[in-house]
Amino acid sequence: MFSRKRLFIHIVRLLQSNFKSDASKADIETFYPMCLVKVQGVVQVYREKLQVKVIRIRKTTEQDGVNITDFVRSAPVEADKLLTVITKAIESITKDDIKSIVNFCFEKVKDKMQTSPAAKSHHHAYYGGLAYHIVRMLELGEFICRQRPFLNSDLIKAGIILHDIAKPLEMISEYGMVTDYSNQGKLIGHISMASNWITEASIKLGIDLESSTVMVLQHLVLSHHNLAEWGSPVQPQLPEAVALHYIDALDAKLQMVEDMLQTTAENEEWTAAIRGLENKSIYRLKL
Amino acid sequence: MFSRKRLFIHIVRLLQSNFKSDASKADIETFYPMCLVKVQGVVQVYREKLQVKVIRIRKTTEQDGVNITDFVRSAPVEADKLLTVITKAIESITKDDIKSIVNFCFEKVKDKMQTSPAAKSHHHAYYGGLAYHIVRMLELGEFICRQRPFLNSDLIKAGIILHDIAKPLEMISEYGMVTDYSNQGKLIGHISMASNWITEASIKLGIDLESSTVMVLQHLVLSHHNLAEWGSPVQPQLPEAVALHYIDALDAKLQMVEDMLQTTAENEEWTAAIRGLENKSIYRLKL
Amino acid sequence: MFSRKRLFIHIVRLLQSNFKSDASKADIETFYPMCLVKVQGVVQVYREKLQVKVIRIRKTTEQDGVNITDFVRSAPVEADKLLTVITKAIESITKDDIKSIVNFCFEKVKDKMQTSPAAKSHHHAYYGGLAYHIVRMLELGEFICRQRPFLNSDLIKAGIILHDIAKPLEMISEYGMVTDYSNQGKLIGHISMASNWITEASIKLGIDLESSTVMVLQHLVLSHHNLAEWGSPVQPQLPEAVALHYIDALDAKLQMVEDMLQTTAENEEWTAAIRGLENKSIYRLKL
Amino acid sequence: MFSRKRLFIHIVRLLQSNFKSDASKADIETFYPMCLVKVQGVVQVYREKLQVKVIRIRKTTEQDGVNITDFVRSAPVEADKLLTVITKAIESITKDDIKSIVNFCFEKVKDKMQTSPAAKSHHHAYYGGLAYHIVRMLELGEFICRQRPFLNSDLIKAGIILHDIAKPLEMISEYGMVTDYSNQGKLIGHISMASNWITEASIKLGIDLESSTVMVLQHLVLSHHNLAEWGSPVQPQLPEAVALHYIDALDAKLQMVEDMLQTTAENEEWTAAIRGLENKSIYRLKL
Amino acid sequence: MFSRKRLFIHIVRLLQSNFKSDASKADIETFYPMCLVKVQGVVQVYREKLQVKVIRIRKTTEQDGVNITDFVRSAPVEADKLLTVITKAIESITKDDIKSIVNFCFEKVKDKMQTSPAAKSHHHAYYGGLAYHIVRMLELGEFICRQRPFLNSDLIKAGIILHDIAKPLEMISEYGMVTDYSNQGKLIGHISMASNWITEASIKLGIDLESSTVMVLQHLVLSHHNLAEWGSPVQPQLPEAVALHYIDALDAKLQMVEDMLQTTAENEEWTAAIRGLENKSIYRLKL
Amino acid sequence: MFSRKRLFIHIVRLLQSNFKSDASKADIETFYPMCLVKVQGVVQVYREKLQVKVIRIRKTTEQDGVNITDFVRSAPVEADKLLTVITKAIESITKDDIKSIVNFCFEKVKDKMQTSPAAKSHHHAYYGGLAYHIVRMLELGEFICRQRPFLNSDLIKAGIILHDIAKPLEMISEYGMVTDYSNQGKLIGHISMASNWITEASIKLGIDLESSTVMVLQHLVLSHHNLAEWGSPVQPQLPEAVALHYIDALDAKLQMVEDMLQTTAENEEWTAAIRGLENKSIYRLKL
Repeated sequence: MFSRKRLFIHIVRLLQSNFKSDASKADIETFYPMCLVKVQGVVQVYREKLQVKVIRIRKTTEQDGVNITDFVRSAPVEADKLLTVITKAIESITKDDIKSIVNFCFEKVKDKMQTSPAAKSHHHAYYGGLAYHIVRMLELGEFICRQRPFLNSDLIKAGIILHDIAKPLEMISEYGMVTDYSNQGKLIGHISMASNWITEASIKLGIDLESSTVMVLQHLVLSHHNLAEWGSPVQPQLPEAVALHYIDALDAKLQMVEDMLQTTAENEEWTAAIRGLENKSIYRLKL
Repeated sequence: MFSRKRLFIHIVRLLQSNFKSDASKADIETFYPMCLVKVQGVVQVYREKLQVKVIRIRKTTEQDGVNITDFVRSAPVEADKLLTVITKAIESITKDDIKSIVNFCFEKVKDKMQTSPAAKSHHHAYYGGLAYHIVRMLELGEFICRQRPFLNSDLIKAGIILHDIAKPLEMISEYGMVTDYSNQGKLIGHISMASNWITEASIKLGIDLESSTVMVLQHLVLSHHNLAEWGSPVQPQLPEAVALHYIDALDAKLQMVEDMLQTTAENEEWTAAIRGLENKSIYRLKL
Repeated sequence: MFSRKRLFIHIVRLLQSNFKSDASKADIETFYPMCLVKVQGVVQVYREKLQVKVIRIRKTTEQDGVNITDFVRSAPVEADKLLTVITKAIESITKDDIKSIVNFCFEKVKDKMQTSPAAKSHHHAYYGGLAYHIVRMLELGEFICRQRPFLNSDLIKAGIILHDIAKPLEMISEYGMVTDYSNQGKLIGHISMASNWITEASIKLGIDLESSTVMVLQHLVLSHHNLAEWGSPVQPQLPEAVALHYIDALDAKLQMVEDMLQTTAENEEWTAAIRGLENKSIYRLKL
Repeated sequence: MFSRKRLFIHIVRLLQSNFKSDASKADIETFYPMCLVKVQGVVQVYREKLQVKVIRIRKTTEQDGVNITDFVRSAPVEADKLLTVITKAIESITKDDIKSIVNFCFEKVKDKMQTSPAAKSHHHAYYGGLAYHIVRMLELGEFICRQRPFLNSDLIKAGIILHDIAKPLEMISEYGMVTDYSNQGKLIGHISMASNWITEASIKLGIDLESSTVMVLQHLVLSHHNLAEWGSPVQPQLPEAVALHYIDALDAKLQMVEDMLQTTAENEEWTAAIRGLENKSIYRLKL
Repeated sequence: MFSRKRLFIHIVRLLQSNFKSDASKADIETFYPMCLVKVQGVVQVYREKLQVKVIRIRKTTEQDGVNITDFVRSAPVEADKLLTVITKAIESITKDDIKSIVNFCFEKVKDKMQTSPAAKSHHHAYYGGLAYHIVRMLELGEFICRQRPFLNSDLIKAGIILHDIAKPLEMISEYGMVTDYSNQGKLIGHISMASNWITEASIKLGIDLESSTVMVLQHLVLSHHNLAEWGSPVQPQLPEAVALHYIDALDAKLQMVEDMLQTTAENEEWTAAIRGLENKSIYRLKL
Repeated sequence: MFSRKRLFIHIVRLLQSNFKSDASKADIETFYPMCLVKVQGVVQVYREKLQVKVIRIRKTTEQDGVNITDFVRSAPVEADKLLTVITKAIESITKDDIKSIVNFCFEKVKDKMQTSPAAKSHHHAYYGGLAYHIVRMLELGEFICRQRPFLNSDLIKAGIILHDIAKPLEMISEYGMVTDYSNQGKLIGHISMASNWITEASIKLGIDLESSTVMVLQHLVLSHHNLAEWGSPVQPQLPEAVALHYIDALDAKLQMVEDMLQTTAENEEWTAAIRGLENKSIYRLKL
């Protein structure tokens, strides 16, 4: 099936931290952590599979014209643009206390937000996935606030930006791929971490810890998983907390579907099972 | 507190079917079912409560200038307008088979749709509640289809209009108040009733029962409660079915909150418990 | 242990659709789908296991005197006889509307009923398993109707025949072995499919869709899994629906036990775990 | 509505133990426990309700021609006949060890079996209800053993007679009405009580406690509620234990339906809700 | 039964905040909140019940020799002594960071700790109940640390003192009786409140928020309800967190039993049902 | 890494019953069951793994100075000492009936108690594990009885010794390693086995089966798993039964943690997941 002669090829490859090689320790330090390398090698057949034997390897330079996001799965919108949208949403919050607390928490993870996924595998599990999730929820939140004016749009925005804000420190990720949970992530969890951050922000910003503002922001974060068995120590008891949970659910579930369809071969009628959707597959309808 | 002398008053009263009186059978037939009557009577004190002793009673006429919806709780938009929106949404469906099946089912309950609530007590439990629920979902569905173009907007519209279409025959209601479930409602349930109606529509419209169109419309209806324990014999396995469930949930839950806040005294910080929201009360926030 | 010399053997083998060979495409078309073939080959030892190397292969003819059911697991009663029993049970239904609806649905799957299993692996998972399950339930149903005359025997018969009637189209099976679920099976499910068929039958037979007969037949089918979490959108609310569920359960569970004991080596005290019986093994008692 | 003159009446009344009167202690001892009395009294009107003022009271004699079962709800078959059927079933057990253990346990409660209900309110909650339940299950068990000869009919009979054998001592009942559970009933429960009785019987009858017979009889009793959450410490792992559970379920559930229909007014379409049937009402069908 | 003449009596009565009277506003301010008053009045019969008509009322003075705890249910050890034990336990913590955080949190509620119950009705629902619960747990914790030296006794002590530390602000109580939950209690809950307090303490005490100490103290508090469905957003993952949960459970359950037995009449064999013990009653054994 | 030359070595090896060899039947009988053997052999390399080829094999003698417990995982206290503690606890029971029943049951398994684990893998899964579990619970029980004098210490001791007393016959174990459950273990379970043993003891010791003593001892055993879904047919309804369950839980859970930490490499921060602790890992804290 293959012409089994040797081919010289040049490939560009993403070195992950679990890269295993016979390279000397010096080499590993040169390339590690994740970076783009250019490899020259020979294609061989080993146990009926094609294999590349590396001959030369070097880090890519700007002249190679390649970008890390060409090699990892990422959100369909560029991270910079996503962060701009989030920043503008924060600026548009009318009540100062809320705005400054949200901003304080956002600044803690702004750098990581560029790359963080929204979950380990459940949904938005890719480069920039968390920021993309937040931006989409902000769009939906804005629509809901127009449709139902009794909702407080400051709280909707704040809730959307804060609800998963501690995820970049709950999980350890490289280029959008979660490799593990952090010790804090396992022992505290992103929901309580975010609640603690609001306390920290309030103290450092001089906002009264007993104020309604602090209480309701913490409530939004703590209740956003809706049920105790889904991880929320309290259940939604503010109109905006009810809205936040269902906006989150709607966006996450539809993204799971969209992501799964995109990574399923076009000629497949059914996707693989999706754990977050009662372990059901999705049918690719052709009407 | 009251000057306990007799007062002659004229009141207009809504006669419900459970009106119990000493009236002759002829009278009951005259007034029954629910209609507006004008009553002349005398206020008396009986066991320390005020009571009206009826002296004269007659049906209201146009000159009285009163309308049934002044006396029952109803959706915030007039029923006529709601039905017009739904009708236009049906007309905007591009695929003929889908449009005609949706229309067939809608015609079966068009008259009752004017008044039907969306549920016995859970949410939208008032005059025109079902139509209002559908119209709000259509708005949300339209937004989601713009935000996520991979969704088929014909199916979103069809799913929204059909998902609760059998409720007016599942429940027995008068002026938006459910008095009981019908035998069909108890033995078949609105989900399977709607599925059967799609079969009926297809046969009468000459649409192939084995076509994808029939299959997916039935799937949308059957799966819209999401979980088996919530009444859905199958779980969502189309992108539009996933969207339908969460659009339904978001609209129903927020309406529960809004309705409960509106019927709670302004000076109350907490509403009564809402069964559909984990039996939690809602906090009326004043920031 | 084996004399490792080459043996020439003649064997007859059932070609399944997942037959993988180096045969040319023409050959595959000749033999596919499942058919009986006569094979001449040589026994070899490969990696310490015996292997047959095929030398010649041809379809069996009548002269070979072999029958497909000799090679697949099948119900202990011949399919023809099972279908005769079911047909007679239908004829014995006294109420015409019920009889004709049952007959209409039965005719839809009569051909497949000959071979269909009752489930993918749960119970009666073999050639003719569904028909055998129905026949056994009819025997039990007849007994229960004699024991408890308040039960309507027309409904018991109809419920038994209709309850799983859509299974042959819910699952894709070859010679009693389910290879997958059909799209309809996944998106609609056999319970709702059967309910839709009753609607279809009523329209085509001119029976009023609003009649009690249609309603109760649909109720029997829809409620026969008893609980929502077991797939029934409504729970049994007719005496015959209660009876149907427990007759079904009693027959299915005992068949699981009987089948498992028959396929467990005689000298084994315990069978493998049975998923449908709380994942418990059965003890082969010798008193 | 009533002619409010005094009426002299003679009534026969069942004195229950919760009979409260101004009667002297001697009188109470005379009449207590439950017995039939003849009362002569006067009908009076008190707070708009009719009341009987007792003038004379005496125990009924044979000449009065009345029987206790005329005044309490009871099984449709006479208790004597039920006990005869059970006794014959025990005699028909072929294996001596099983027969003598079953007999030993039966003798412990033979007297109470005449009157014991099968449950406090769930099913067969009346005079002779337990014996009636056993007899009906024996009929069904006999049918199942004919239909499925791999079942051991000795074990089926033994399981049916023993499964609820401790109920007469688990509950405190008078004339078929349970007034409370006994201390043993609350602290040990009828399932473990029966298991202990089998141990007791074996020791007293000189049967080896380590024999298979003792083990399987205890297994039948212990597993007959099927699931841990329904009270069984082990799950059915003998073919006869699986059969026993489903025979029990089928008989109990259908009796609930039959009893409820009989105590519901003829003109009511729906019965009250039945706790043992997912709290559903039963529809009185008129085809 | 009673000689219905007027009696002049002097009684001492505890005025609760829900005291309703015709007293003037000035009077109410004089007596409110809860205080002991001496009342002189007349006993009357009203609707067949005895009633006291108040003639004179004044606050008690020291000379009256009565104490508030004579009138409310309270822990069997005096509050002062309980607080002393807790204070000593804090002092005995060897690691300074842990000691100072525990102390900071304890100081927040020291005053209320004197009277706070441990729960609304579940267990230790009386004056000083929370402090008593903590002291008993400290005794048990000390024993366990001796028995299992691999446990860190600083963390055991800290966990025991902090686990319910926010309860006095989660609930609104008067003299050990909870009248409601506070808004913070409903929207944040005592578990997350305590976690936030640890954050606050760390900032104000200059302890690194990223230190292990802060992380593990928060983990102890957050996980002490063990399961998500019991309100813990994370599950125990430190040896001391596992110990804390079971020490808490053992103490709370046994106290429920002891309290219930003490408030059940001596001659009653069975207590009322205890919600926290699977809704079971306790049997008062007399061996 | 290894000098791959042949090495003559002498090793001592524990022969388990699943030892598979080419040894003659006579040899197997000589060595079987589990015994210590001395082996002389040659180290070879086979498929890149080291392998010992046996040259000579003999049972160890006293001179070899080795003990079986050097080769299996075992409780940290010697079995003899554990049994002495248990025996003394039995002797210290003040009520004769209780003491003699406990003793009777203990004598049934005294020999096996020396080696039995407390569970297959859950906790205390090693040589002497059950006795160690009992001894630790006795220590805790003694503490609790001192702390809460309303508890009956006879019942606490009896409950602790009897609660798992049937485990040595429920499971088949060799040197503390469970290889399977016995037939009795599967069909009756250790909880009901122990209840039956109490019945047996009472009959053989001439204690009235209807006495409170028998009833409460059985209740302690039957209820010690607390919930039906955890295997207890009745729930704790004696103060001592409540205590027993939580003493058992506290000891078992902490032992799981301690055992897991001891078998996890010192440099690992996290243990493997522990099934009995909600499948969570334990964090090895270094403060």
